[in-house]
Amino acid sequence: MTTRAPVNLTKLLTPSSIAIIGASTNTTSISGQPLRLMLEVGYAGKLFPVNPRREEVQGVKAYPNAQAIPEKCDVALVAVSAAQVPQALLDCGEAGIPFAVVLAGGFAETGKLGEAAQRELDAAIKQSGVRVVGPNCIGVANIATRAFCAFGGALYDKSLEPGPVAVVSQSGGVGLSMMAHAHARGVDTRYIVSCGNEADLDFFDFTHTLLGQDDVQLILAYLESSLEGKRLRELGQRALQLGKPIILLKVGNSGAGRRAAGSHTGKLTADYTLFKATFKEGGFIEVTDLHEMADVAKLVLGGRYPRGRNIGVLTGSGGWGVMVAEAYERNGLQLPLPTPETAEKLKAVVAEYGSIGNPIDTTPVYGKQHTVLEIIVNEPNWDMLHVRSAGGPALKEWLPNFLNIAKRTDKPIIVGWSPVPGLDLDIKRELEKNGIYCPSFAAEAGRAVGLFTDFAMKRKRLLECGQTPVQRPIAKQTLELSGSGALAEHVSKQCLARYGIPATKEVLLSLDAILALKDAPVSFPVAVKLASPDIPHKTEADAVRLNVKSLDELKAAAQAVVNGGKKHTPSARIDGISVQEMASGVEMIVGAVNDQYFGPYVMVGLGGVLTEVLHDVAHRFAPVTPADARDMLAELKGAKILEGYRGALPADVDAVVDVLVRLSWLIHDHRDRIAEIDVNPLFVRAKGRGVVAADALVVLSGV
Amino acid sequence: MTTRAPVNLTKLLTPSSIAIIGASTNTTSISGQPLRLMLEVGYAGKLFPVNPRREEVQGVKAYPNAQAIPEKCDVALVAVSAAQVPQALLDCGEAGIPFAVVLAGGFAETGKLGEAAQRELDAAIKQSGVRVVGPNCIGVANIATRAFCAFGGALYDKSLEPGPVAVVSQSGGVGLSMMAHAHARGVDTRYIVSCGNEADLDFFDFTHTLLGQDDVQLILAYLESSLEGKRLRELGQRALQLGKPIILLKVGNSGAGRRAAGSHTGKLTADYTLFKATFKEGGFIEVTDLHEMADVAKLVLGGRYPRGRNIGVLTGSGGWGVMVAEAYERNGLQLPLPTPETAEKLKAVVAEYGSIGNPIDTTPVYGKQHTVLEIIVNEPNWDMLHVRSAGGPALKEWLPNFLNIAKRTDKPIIVGWSPVPGLDLDIKRELEKNGIYCPSFAAEAGRAVGLFTDFAMKRKRLLECGQTPVQRPIAKQTLELSGSGALAEHVSKQCLARYGIPATKEVLLSLDAILALKDAPVSFPVAVKLASPDIPHKTEADAVRLNVKSLDELKAAAQAVVNGGKKHTPSARIDGISVQEMASGVEMIVGAVNDQYFGPYVMVGLGGVLTEVLHDVAHRFAPVTPADARDMLAELKGAKILEGYRGALPADVDAVVDVLVRLSWLIHDHRDRIAEIDVNPLFVRAKGRGVVAADALVVLSGV
Repeated sequence: MTTRAPVNLTKLLTPSSIAIIGASTNTTSISGQPLRLMLEVGYAGKLFPVNPRREEVQGVKAYPNAQAIPEKCDVALVAVSAAQVPQALLDCGEAGIPFAVVLAGGFAETGKLGEAAQRELDAAIKQSGVRVVGPNCIGVANIATRAFCAFGGALYDKSLEPGPVAVVSQSGGVGLSMMAHAHARGVDTRYIVSCGNEADLDFFDFTHTLLGQDDVQLILAYLESSLEGKRLRELGQRALQLGKPIILLKVGNSGAGRRAAGSHTGKLTADYTLFKATFKEGGFIEVTDLHEMADVAKLVLGGRYPRGRNIGVLTGSGGWGVMVAEAYERNGLQLPLPTPETAEKLKAVVAEYGSIGNPIDTTPVYGKQHTVLEIIVNEPNWDMLHVRSAGGPALKEWLPNFLNIAKRTDKPIIVGWSPVPGLDLDIKRELEKNGIYCPSFAAEAGRAVGLFTDFAMKRKRLLECGQTPVQRPIAKQTLELSGSGALAEHVSKQCLARYGIPATKEVLLSLDAILALKDAPVSFPVAVKLASPDIPHKTEADAVRLNVKSLDELKAAAQAVVNGGKKHTPSARIDGISVQEMASGVEMIVGAVNDQYFGPYVMVGLGGVLTEVLHDVAHRFAPVTPADARDMLAELKGAKILEGYRGALPADVDAVVDVLVRLSWLIHDHRDRIAEIDVNPLFVRAKGRGVVAADALVVLSGV
Repeated sequence: MTTRAPVNLTKLLTPSSIAIIGASTNTTSISGQPLRLMLEVGYAGKLFPVNPRREEVQGVKAYPNAQAIPEKCDVALVAVSAAQVPQALLDCGEAGIPFAVVLAGGFAETGKLGEAAQRELDAAIKQSGVRVVGPNCIGVANIATRAFCAFGGALYDKSLEPGPVAVVSQSGGVGLSMMAHAHARGVDTRYIVSCGNEADLDFFDFTHTLLGQDDVQLILAYLESSLEGKRLRELGQRALQLGKPIILLKVGNSGAGRRAAGSHTGKLTADYTLFKATFKEGGFIEVTDLHEMADVAKLVLGGRYPRGRNIGVLTGSGGWGVMVAEAYERNGLQLPLPTPETAEKLKAVVAEYGSIGNPIDTTPVYGKQHTVLEIIVNEPNWDMLHVRSAGGPALKEWLPNFLNIAKRTDKPIIVGWSPVPGLDLDIKRELEKNGIYCPSFAAEAGRAVGLFTDFAMKRKRLLECGQTPVQRPIAKQTLELSGSGALAEHVSKQCLARYGIPATKEVLLSLDAILALKDAPVSFPVAVKLASPDIPHKTEADAVRLNVKSLDELKAAAQAVVNGGKKHTPSARIDGISVQEMASGVEMIVGAVNDQYFGPYVMVGLGGVLTEVLHDVAHRFAPVTPADARDMLAELKGAKILEGYRGALPADVDAVVDVLVRLSWLIHDHRDRIAEIDVNPLFVRAKGRGVVAADALVVLSGV
């Protein structure tokens, strides 16, 4: 991977002194807000307004330019208009200020209009040596020190407290909303960074540095577009290794959203498919909204990680039990029954009209909830517990008992909360302090717990297997790859063969030779195709016969394809007749691409319409392990076909897994020369009988 | 349809006098709560506690039994234990009380345990002539008159106000939560009915009667299970005709949820697929959670109905614009660009760094929002508008201007609200009073507006086309349907032919006859199959050849299938060789079933894996119109295949539509005799060239 060194952002994130270039006396304007804000909320560092027309601004002594400031500031907040920004940066450089936050818009994001301004800006950044945030951003804020090199109404909220969360956003507006909504839900942010246009420092610089800080346990991120696929993958891998998830809103993926993201940031966006593969591979949790983001953050910060996907549900209302059970199942969790031992103990407690299963329905006899909870808290079949809260006046008595029982396990415990907003908030907060997530709705609980569990399972796999070195199925092979563009089919098949991927056999014979045959030239059944440079579309010329099963039928077929070809194109030159081993089995497509942004990956799909019309395919970056390849197959909506469809025997899944692993090493080893490999179809035979590539195409990258 | 007469529930829903059988002095017990509750919240009607051991209960004169009450009460609230319920009902009958609400559990819902109790209950209901709600329910409540024949904490809330909403729920707990959450969101309920076990009155009696009342504009419903498919369909049709949607949570559809729903209500559940078809057909809006339910209710009660699926988005934050755009697109809405006239007017107002498109991004210059809104409010390309709220202190000034502009259109207007709960609630309420929906999250807005628009489009279609009588493609045909069970293939194909559905031709010939042929017996290409009563699985016996294209090849194939059959089963009797017209085209499956619960329906899917593995099929009840049939095809995930896949010509969709319509009349006309029709495959040729059924099976119902 193309590692870019992490930038030390300490002075930017926690400045002791801030220059405000263009500080205004108009406290409602963007150039007046930051100073007003920091004075109001009590920033303890030093503030140096720069304004050549004033002795002081908002009661603070002002300076004519950055160079005139009597000490070396940690950050310059540049609040001047686009045209004045380059000079301001050069001044900062001369004044020895290492970081500048540029608020103004009017650069690359406006398209042609801002091209010239962007060029000037780029030159000034280079010349000045100043590291720049923005332009076209709302700034950088440190909630702990109240260093707000930023503007925006949400920052005036005096109840803000620093927590273990960092917000990094390619939209300033959404970034502030993420912070504000999370705060209202009890998830507190320490740092907010609005990336803006990323003329210099970018999303990855911020997230990489923040991930490495001890005071950050979790990143909330908003990403519109990026072509930095490799850095995104690297970020995800680091997040997973550190166990600090990046909860991510990724937009700009399709239709009007993509169009709007384009106009908003002036950038191209890469294929969403590869973003998805990146999120799956690394420590990302992709969400679709701010509410979901806060829900998942609560679970992460709760610190209770599930060891598996099994959840037990305890309810006092049958109806709620059903809703919750279905919501969890929709999100990839399972609800196995309790062990017989637990069921036996429950019998003595649950009313005869209740139900002992999963959900357990105690009926509305709340007094018994603790007894039931004590019985199930260490139930071995369940990795998590969902408990419907009692609600009402009983809640205060219920709390201490509940917390005592909850302490006996480190499994996640979810308390289904009242759907009436604002009820019993003090008790809810107490629960949340103890790492207990309290969702009000079944759908919300299902989604958040499902996403969190996906992350927990990835992290678990890393901790369990991460130390084992990756095993190659085959040493790096030398391939003769000369020229550029597509290789011929038989040459492509040779490349596959070198990596141990089998392909079908074929022979080219004359009609006479076929008519004289005493034995099968390749084993039956065979495909018979006229080979003529003048007939590229053989099917249309009636010059193909498939599934020919005997010598007599082969001879009739050979004559028929010659007749067909001659009728279609009387003048056609005939090279002979190609007799090909007719492969059969489940038809799959496997491929590999060295993506210019993300690097080499493999893909797999079930053949025909599933891949081509429904796009039912799975992607992983190369090289892949057998476990990854198995996950890819499991991801396919049509995966059931491999289990034996229409009475067929189960397919040789192990052989497909082997092909994917080998193909991933092939593209990994030769990514400098191979742009793309396409195996279509790959026939998968019954279990134990392997696979065979019926067609293959290797495309070299241009030299 | 099997119409069951609506029940006049006036005395149940709005009683002037209530007997409380088993009224207790313990005000926290279920039998003590209702009296306490009504005394506390001020029910204005008369209350008659019945308790043989007391002169008075909670300060109200008590009676030894129902007969002793000096007047004929409208309702008896039966709060005694299961064993005492039958006698209580008989007493009510003698006292001339028309309705009883039975709270106790311990009947059919407990399985075997309650079987005897249920039988006694059923007998008492019959004998007494009393119409019963429950048992095992939390009762019936009228928020307007505070007639609470019910128990449950949520009813003590004194802020409850009657609105135009009725809640009907098969779970008491969920019903109260639905009411309470909706109330917290400004959607007020007038009636709540908890159905319980439905020993007598059921979900359909309640919903049908409530739909017909002028004081109900909307029903919120929770349905776990029902085998009353026909009444559900009837309910949906009536709701659509009245323009009063039923916003529905349907659970118990799969896995643990279904298992739990079973244990909760002791009922079977029919196939979810047909529920889905019912919801699509009628005035239902299916939601997945209470939050979504309240969101959609707000849009319905707002009274602004869209005329199409096009929405325009106005934002001051590019990031929010992208999120909102994507959320709407995910939910079936479109974001077309504004007309050139509108775009021209916008140029003068939107900042040069903003963006004129859809979304329109004004950048954060809030002062201009009204000017922009005035320009776009009547934009002809948009059926709805989404506007991001200004937020903060400017909001109070913004409101009257905004409302003035909003009054100029009856299109839905959605205001994207702050994601921080509790902000500016007074302004939000004012907007909502004017029918403006104010969601805080993009995902929430997308989902609710998408669901509401689906309903609006159904309603629009009904108003536009509902008056046209349904046209038959063919008069009712007489079919000879004798016996029961499956008809032979050629007889089945004759049934289809009578309704104008074409099928493939076939002939049965001896091997000698084939070897002597001079001409094709049916047109090439053909399928060649050995016909032997001893070889049912021809493919396994190597006794099938497909796609045979010439006379020579036919002769070779005929010999080959005889050889194959003899080798596989040397003693096999041979009836001859079937030579069948080989159909080709896009492979589809069409079918029809007379479902015992829901009635006759048709289904369609794309052949092979799409139907069998991915269950990519669409269902509609018979008879269907061509428009319905077209919707069915559009619903298929693989619909693109019909547009011309892998370079093929577009398929003859009109012919498929015609087959579906004809098949729907076939099952409709003969639903008394035909259980099922299966056409698999139906080959669809290129546009204008029709379809042909390659195989067909008609199954008669048992006599």
